[in-house]
Amino acid sequence: PDTKLPKVGTTIFTVMSQLAAEHEAVNLGQGFPDFPVPPRLVEELDRAMRAGHNQYAPMTGIPALRQAIAAKTARVYGVRPDPDAEITVTSGATEAIFNAVQAVVRAGEEVIVLDPAYDSYEPAIELAGARAVHVPLDPRTFAPDWRRIGDAIGPKTRMLMINSPHNPSGAMLSAADMDTLAGLLRDTGIWLLSDEVYEHIVFDGARHESALRHPELRERAFVVSSFGKTYHCTGWKLGYCIAPPALSAEFRKVHQYNVFCTFAPAQHAFAAMLEAEPEHYEQLGAFYQAKRDRFREQLLGTKLRPLPVPGGYFQLVDYSAVSDLDDVAFCRWLTSEKGVAAIPLSPFYETPPAGQRLARLCFAKNAPTLDAAIERLQRLP
Amino acid sequence: PDTKLPKVGTTIFTVMSQLAAEHEAVNLGQGFPDFPVPPRLVEELDRAMRAGHNQYAPMTGIPALRQAIAAKTARVYGVRPDPDAEITVTSGATEAIFNAVQAVVRAGEEVIVLDPAYDSYEPAIELAGARAVHVPLDPRTFAPDWRRIGDAIGPKTRMLMINSPHNPSGAMLSAADMDTLAGLLRDTGIWLLSDEVYEHIVFDGARHESALRHPELRERAFVVSSFGKTYHCTGWKLGYCIAPPALSAEFRKVHQYNVFCTFAPAQHAFAAMLEAEPEHYEQLGAFYQAKRDRFREQLLGTKLRPLPVPGGYFQLVDYSAVSDLDDVAFCRWLTSEKGVAAIPLSPFYETPPAGQRLARLCFAKNAPTLDAAIERLQRLP
Ligand SMILES: CSCCC(=O)C(=O)O
Ligand SMILES: CSCCC(=O)C(=O)O
Repeated sequence: PDTKLPKVGTTIFTVMSQLAAEHEAVNLGQGFPDFPVPPRLVEELDRAMRAGHNQYAPMTGIPALRQAIAAKTARVYGVRPDPDAEITVTSGATEAIFNAVQAVVRAGEEVIVLDPAYDSYEPAIELAGARAVHVPLDPRTFAPDWRRIGDAIGPKTRMLMINSPHNPSGAMLSAADMDTLAGLLRDTGIWLLSDEVYEHIVFDGARHESALRHPELRERAFVVSSFGKTYHCTGWKLGYCIAPPALSAEFRKVHQYNVFCTFAPAQHAFAAMLEAEPEHYEQLGAFYQAKRDRFREQLLGTKLRPLPVPGGYFQLVDYSAVSDLDDVAFCRWLTSEKGVAAIPLSPFYETPPAGQRLARLCFAKNAPTLDAAIERLQRLP
Repeated sequence: PDTKLPKVGTTIFTVMSQLAAEHEAVNLGQGFPDFPVPPRLVEELDRAMRAGHNQYAPMTGIPALRQAIAAKTARVYGVRPDPDAEITVTSGATEAIFNAVQAVVRAGEEVIVLDPAYDSYEPAIELAGARAVHVPLDPRTFAPDWRRIGDAIGPKTRMLMINSPHNPSGAMLSAADMDTLAGLLRDTGIWLLSDEVYEHIVFDGARHESALRHPELRERAFVVSSFGKTYHCTGWKLGYCIAPPALSAEFRKVHQYNVFCTFAPAQHAFAAMLEAEPEHYEQLGAFYQAKRDRFREQLLGTKLRPLPVPGGYFQLVDYSAVSDLDDVAFCRWLTSEKGVAAIPLSPFYETPPAGQRLARLCFAKNAPTLDAAIERLQRLP
């Protein structure tokens, strides 16, 4: 009763992973790969530890890593952030999102989030004493309705959050979207938080429209990414935030007294990795596209209807031919009775669309894992 | 000007480490060892990575590590916290302190800190919209004045922070202190944050009075510690918080959406290490006591007057025979002109005691490092 954060419960990822473990379900819920990290990364981390890089890293991250991130950003997006003033290494993208909100959003202000929204956004906003203003994406295409978003902007709006490629839908913002967004934010004091952790997992020749590509948006953006998705190491918890110097300065005020710095040997490992294989991420789209295509093909043999997946490593499926349960009940049933863990979408909404019958399956898995899941899904009544 | 956190600057540790690097000074400033981590820990981390433990750990920490922490706590303090309900693994003690404050301190409330206070405390309090109420420790003995502390308690007080062994002074709280504190907090709604990161670095047969030993304090305490100091790996950023179930539940609401979990392979490494060498910490006091004694002996050959060091790995020195500069100016001069980096105390005070002429030197260093520093310190005018 006497809790400061009454609305915060246990994240659905933990709930479903625990249920999956209990029932020995194939876990296509929480988003993590089941294949190995690149061997070079393990070797480099090992080398860093043995070379004695085991004490505090600089608060902002080791210079070599920040320089490598700057070089990579220049190569991919054509803009080179200043490694000293604009890049901060964090304990995963989650810490970066948390810090950005705490750094600039004040009590009583508002932050616009687009539902379904990743489940750490709102608690971070609540903790700042601010209010999340939810604007739904289209319930089938997950495209933003810029008119509704514009209507949600008011005098208290301090930040707007976007996420492309989008978790859970895989939807991507277009260059036109970014222009429209820039127009909406022009002459306002609204900061942008752009969550781009799936930036390198894009399909069918599409181009990821990073906020960094857009000169006007870049001026007001915290661009957040992570190595976890790109290098198959979600448990290494290494991410970063790129923001203009004034925003980075505010961001670092929180980071400095939140975790101070991140696991040092991994910073050295990634600095070496990015230098040795700067093109690593280039094959990532093709790698996951093959998994996506194979998985979608297999899904055609089930009663689940796959939605399009432009990016990311999640497949949404419409399960209305199988069950009329709401999505949380369906995912619990699928996990405990049918042996496949999935993630429902309603926890990511303030107001879930009535009658939405969608579940999220993670295809960042080896073929045998996906085959085992498909075999079980084929048996759905 | 338009900053949410106007009082937060760059931590003195970063400032002095940068100055040390610029001037190639012997760095006895920021507190980190220059000797290797136990080889077993490197081997175990390596093994964990190669065994594939590279994806998200459970939010609270892997069960094996929480069980090992519970077993260690039982061995050392005679109480066994529940690994599931009472132990949360964090990105260092700094994140644990930050989370505890955000979890239970509300805007407009007050937190009592004892000056000199570790420099992450106040920013964490400010970010919660609360106010740090500073009560000074004795300027020579660094003992708490419980009457003044009692006087500082008011209707808005929500938390009180203690730190024993104390950074920067090494002072330790006694069993009588803990009883007095328990009396002060009795029948209040004030939580205790007990920062015990130097718990195993205690000298001359003294006993560390963990809040966990005190049944009444334990009921209201977030007890925070870290592996960084005990295992010579400050850059691994692995710590934990032990708190009663209801407090841990609130704590986890923040941790879950702040970093979610910590670097997974290190959790496996420490779980294995704590099981294989449960007595590791037992030799830590003797290990550092030998360093302390040798360093103090050497300091007698300089004009710096060492203060007593009951615990921790910092030596305070009175430099009034050398200089009349204030401590920040002195430490800058010592670093840039005399080649030895030290940490001034005034940044850890709201109101530094008038005329205090103390600097902090870290002796968690190999003999050659300390010898090089002493050689330079002998030449002070
Ligand atoms: C922090 S656990 C959640 C992982 C994830 O990003 C997802 O499954 O969407
Ligand atoms: C986070 S850098 C500070 C390290 C430390 O604990 C100290 O030097 O007091």
